[in-house]
Formats: sequence, C-alpha cells, structure tokens
Amino acid sequence: MAQPSASLADETVQPFAAEGLPRTLWWDDGAGVLRMIDQTRLPGEVAVLSCATSAEVGEAIRRLQVRGAPAIGVAAAYGLALGAREAAAADDPHARLREIAAQLRATRPTAVNLGWALDRLLAVAIETPVDELPARLLTEAQAVADEDAAACRSMGRLGAELIADGDTLLTHCNAGALATAGMGTALAPIFTAHQAGKRLHVYVDETRPVLQGARLTAWELGRAGVPYTLIADNMAAHFLRRGGIRGVFVGADRIAANGDVANKIGTYGLAILAREHGVPLYVVAPRSTVDLALPDGDAIPIEERNGDEVTTLAGRRIAPEDARVANPAFDVTPARYVAAIVTEAGMARPPFDVALAELMRD
Amino acid sequence: MAQPSASLADETVQPFAAEGLPRTLWWDDGAGVLRMIDQTRLPGEVAVLSCATSAEVGEAIRRLQVRGAPAIGVAAAYGLALGAREAAAADDPHARLREIAAQLRATRPTAVNLGWALDRLLAVAIETPVDELPARLLTEAQAVADEDAAACRSMGRLGAELIADGDTLLTHCNAGALATAGMGTALAPIFTAHQAGKRLHVYVDETRPVLQGARLTAWELGRAGVPYTLIADNMAAHFLRRGGIRGVFVGADRIAANGDVANKIGTYGLAILAREHGVPLYVVAPRSTVDLALPDGDAIPIEERNGDEVTTLAGRRIAPEDARVANPAFDVTPARYVAAIVTEAGMARPPFDVALAELMRD
Repeated sequence: MAQPSASLADETVQPFAAEGLPRTLWWDDGAGVLRMIDQTRLPGEVAVLSCATSAEVGEAIRRLQVRGAPAIGVAAAYGLALGAREAAAADDPHARLREIAAQLRATRPTAVNLGWALDRLLAVAIETPVDELPARLLTEAQAVADEDAAACRSMGRLGAELIADGDTLLTHCNAGALATAGMGTALAPIFTAHQAGKRLHVYVDETRPVLQGARLTAWELGRAGVPYTLIADNMAAHFLRRGGIRGVFVGADRIAANGDVANKIGTYGLAILAREHGVPLYVVAPRSTVDLALPDGDAIPIEERNGDEVTTLAGRRIAPEDARVANPAFDVTPARYVAAIVTEAGMARPPFDVALAELMRD
Repeated sequence: MAQPSASLADETVQPFAAEGLPRTLWWDDGAGVLRMIDQTRLPGEVAVLSCATSAEVGEAIRRLQVRGAPAIGVAAAYGLALGAREAAAADDPHARLREIAAQLRATRPTAVNLGWALDRLLAVAIETPVDELPARLLTEAQAVADEDAAACRSMGRLGAELIADGDTLLTHCNAGALATAGMGTALAPIFTAHQAGKRLHVYVDETRPVLQGARLTAWELGRAGVPYTLIADNMAAHFLRRGGIRGVFVGADRIAANGDVANKIGTYGLAILAREHGVPLYVVAPRSTVDLALPDGDAIPIEERNGDEVTTLAGRRIAPEDARVANPAFDVTPARYVAAIVTEAGMARPPFDVALAELMRD
C-alpha cells in the first residue's frame, strides 16, 4: 500500500496550486514518487499519499484515493511509468510492462480515460529500447498530465460562455480539480466564470454513496470562493422547480459515439429532471473520454462496487446487518437528454454522432 | 425529555405485533405512559421510549423518535391526553389544554394528520367537563390509534389489488408500520400482497438525509420476509430503466384538494422519473392526510430542518465545516404525476378534485 502520508512540512509536498485549487496528483522528481491528495480523507484532512510502485498506484485508484476519469487516466500513466522501473529486471521487460498495464486497467472498468492513457504509453513503449523505458514513459506520463491540465483550461474557457452573470447552476459528484490534473471538467467553466467576475450560485448534490459532492466539490468551491449550497441528491427536483437553476454541469467517464454518457450514478435521473424543468444539461469532458468504438451507451460496462459503501456511512452501519444492496457506480444518460458536450477542442451539439466524430478528427 | 429506554424484560413493553411487524407506539395503561419505539436508534437497537408528559411527546416528535404522518397524529393525540392530566391543575384547564395543543402542533408543520388529530381531541374536550377530561381524551386518543390501524388494513387490502404475483416495486422513505399505529400506508399493500402469497421484490430508496428507507423500511421488510434491495436515492432512475419496476408506492404527509401531494423530500423527483419510464406512482394515505381546505400544493408549508442532518452522520462531519446547506424535509408532487391515491375508503383516480371530495364525503 502507498505510504499513508507525506509530511506537508516538506516543501516539495504542496497540495495546492494557483487560486486555491487543489493539486490532485503530481510527480515528485526528487523523491521519484507519485504524490496525490488522499481524497478519501477530505474534507476533514488534507493528506498526501506517495506511491512508489505501480501496485500502489493501482491500489490508490481502486480505493478511490484518486478518482475522476481524467485523474485516474493520469494516475495510471504515472503508474505504468513506475511499472517500467519494475519491469527492467524482468526477462522480457516489454511483456512485463503489458502485464502491469493489464493490472492497472482492471482497477476501474467504466472510465475509458484509464485505458486510453495506458494504451498511449504502451504505444510509446513498443518503440522504446528497454534501457530507455523508465525515462521515456515518465516523460509521456508527464505529457498526459500536462495535456489534461491544458484541456481543463480550454473546457473552462469554452464552457464559461454558457454561464451568465447571476446564474444559479447545479452539479453532481465531483468533476472539479480533484477529478483531473488541472482545474477540472464540469467545474472548470464555473471556476473560469467566477474568476471573470460573474456572480454565481451552485447547488451541489452530495452524491451518495461516496459523497464526492459533499466531501470534494463543496470543499473545492468553498476554497475558491464560489457560493454554493449543499443538498441531498433527492432534493434536486425540488430546487430545479423552485431554485431558479439555469444549467446542470456534469463530467463524464465514457461517452459513446452517439453521445450517450456514462457518468456517476444519479446523472441519468438528474438529466431527466433537468429536461422536465427546461434546464439544459451540459457534459464537460476531455476528448480522452470519448470512445468512438462504442456505438451507444448500452455496451458501456457499469462498475458494481461493494455494498458497504451504501450500508455504512463514515464507518457506521446505517442499514440492517443482512441488508441486500445494489451499488452501481455509474449510469448511462441517453444522448437525447444532453444539451451539449464541451471538450477541449470545441462544443458538440446534437446530432452528437456527427459532432463528436468531427471533434475527434481534429 | 422522555425516559431513554424502558426495559424489554417488562412484558408490557413488547415492541412487536403480529407477523413480525413493529408496534410503533401504544398506551401502557398500567404505567400510565405512552410507549414508542425510538426510531432514531433503529435498525441497530430496538429501544422503547416512555413518555409521561405532553412535552416529552412533543420532543419525541420533534426529534423524529416517532415520525410518519399517521404515527405523529396518533402520538399527538396521546400527547394531548397526557396534557389533560397536566391541565387539570390549571386555573382554566380548557385554556391550558389549548396551549398544550398549540405546542404539539408546532413540532412538525407539514403533516396535516398532526393538526387533524389535535383538532379532533379539542372538539371532544370542549364538550367534556373538566374532571372528565383526562379519561375522555385518553379514550379518544385510543380511538384515533385504533382507527388508524383499521385504516392501514383497508389501504392494504385495496392497494394489494394493484400488485400482481412476481411484481418488482419501488418505495421511498418509510411509509410502513413504523409510520402508523398499524401495518403502514404505502407498505400495507406490499405486506398484504406478500401475506397472500404473491412473490415480490422491492427496491428501497435509502432516503437521505435521515435514511428512513435504509434504517426503517429495509428493517421492516426484512423482518416480514419481503425480498428487497436497498439503493441510494440517486439510483432510482437506473433501476426504473433496467430493473423491471412495475409500480412506485409512497405515503403522504398532506394531500391538497386537487391531488397535489406533500411527501418526504425526493418524492417529486421520483414521480417524474416514474412517469418518464411509464411506471405508475401510487400514493397510499389515510383520509386524515387529505386537506380539502388547501386548493393545491403550493400553499403547503415545507418544513426546513437543521442542516446538520445533511452535513453530519453519527456525529461525524461529512462536509466542510462551513458548508452552506439546504434541508427541506418534504417536497410537493403535482397531481398530474400521480396514478392513484389509495385511502381506507377507496381509491381516487384523476381527476382528483372530484374523486377526493367524494371519498371525504363518505
């Protein structure tokens, strides 16, 4: 397991970036480790994990210490770069590297960014001599991280055009800085609009069962000075009817060729509620989230997580001991509920099959 | 405050009735106290509270130790009967009784059953000599409880006709035995169908923030042997699309003359999701829930509860310390989303203004 916590007294271990946004994960060149904020301990504690092996990175992804589709793509890239060090001692380092990639790939099935990042590094690895693998893959992982941060800025700029001064918005789960190596996906337009002086108010779904909204999004928005109101997920309809909400912003874990969107459980219901109230649903996600190989959302694998996430809260049992429970971590929102998909390369509007193919070609 | 717990070794303190259903609250004639299951401690512990004063009953209602519109109506009736003992020493016992009624009425603003029960006892009190008040109001409170239990059986019988062998259903919050002095409202048809040998499966929304579904409904269904699956509220849309759900059963805290329904927060969203998937929403509630004085749901007062219910669990913080939070305990579902309203006197179908007026006249 990853080292539980690096000392924040060490000045290379600084978990905050510009404008108060968290620094979700980064490579520490001096220590030769991947640092990440342990998101399972937020908001009570800002602890920094250090991962020195590919297995530690995989475990951090599985345990949701790092989560969010773009962030787990970046984490997996660094994990495979660490794996290149481990593979060096194997009889066939390239074969060993593929095994390590398969282990990382198996940690979370729904987000496509994870597989996308691993495939990108494996493609580089094939053309790289064994003795250059560790350095070359680390460079490539760094490029994945840098490009993700740049994509966040672009999505922020493009998405902010959808937001007017005085708007009230709603978001689900955490698609903020903590879900990326940059300023976030769905929250990037909100941060950008806020930084430009637009007055905003954001309703934040708490997002059961893991409470990414209550624990992470509320914390990020609060630090950035964006006014928000935390609500339970089942209050969204009430505030869509009475709260003057003008737009719903969510991220995505995988987007099919026709615009169907897999995202955190609850997104599909929220999409229906938004449409019923005439409020547009905007999906904000980098192109690495788009999977043109999938014709529609029906084929997206939905991760079923441990029922304990539902039956216990903050370590305490909240349901009968023998309760049978379902815990799908994601759902699929059909494209017809989506008003626009904002990527770093531009905004797709229906019909999404045409618009997404165009954006992916650029 | 009410005595924290009566000994279950005392055989007059038996918190279970026939078929494993809980005995939510009852008058203990020997001890001269109102007993109730402390619902804040379920499902971990079955503890029985003893209320010896009207203030203790009011406090138990306010703290949700007893909850559910019919049950708080019954509790308030017993509370006022206890108040008649307290009022006996006052200069003007009738005036003091009205003050006590006002205090009980203020504990929860949304459910109309509470005010309905108090008004019923006050009407009896007006015609009762001072020295007979305690005994007469206790008799009336007992009648309120008995009629509620009988209404539950009727709603169960009528509502069970909506359920076929093999059906999968969904329910929100707890409208079971624990919400009444009998076998429940929305769960009564389910218990009745189950007892008749129909094979059922029930999806149970956990119902944030107070988790009445996870803590109470799952516990009741499990004890009664009804197969169920506990889900987070935001999973309902996913299972409405994929789970073969044939009907959604909910209770009500107040029903306006036009059929608009105030019920636990989340009901309105669920109603929209049910209709989007072609699944009927059935509201099951006794006639004491219907408020013909209200033309529609817009005038129903919505109780705003303490934000700590959202931001903490079992004393542990799950959101930032300074989080701003909203916590409406109820929402209003417009009548157009409701397929039928099942009362003890019959089933109302649209147009509800006509059908409800008819049912209330009988």
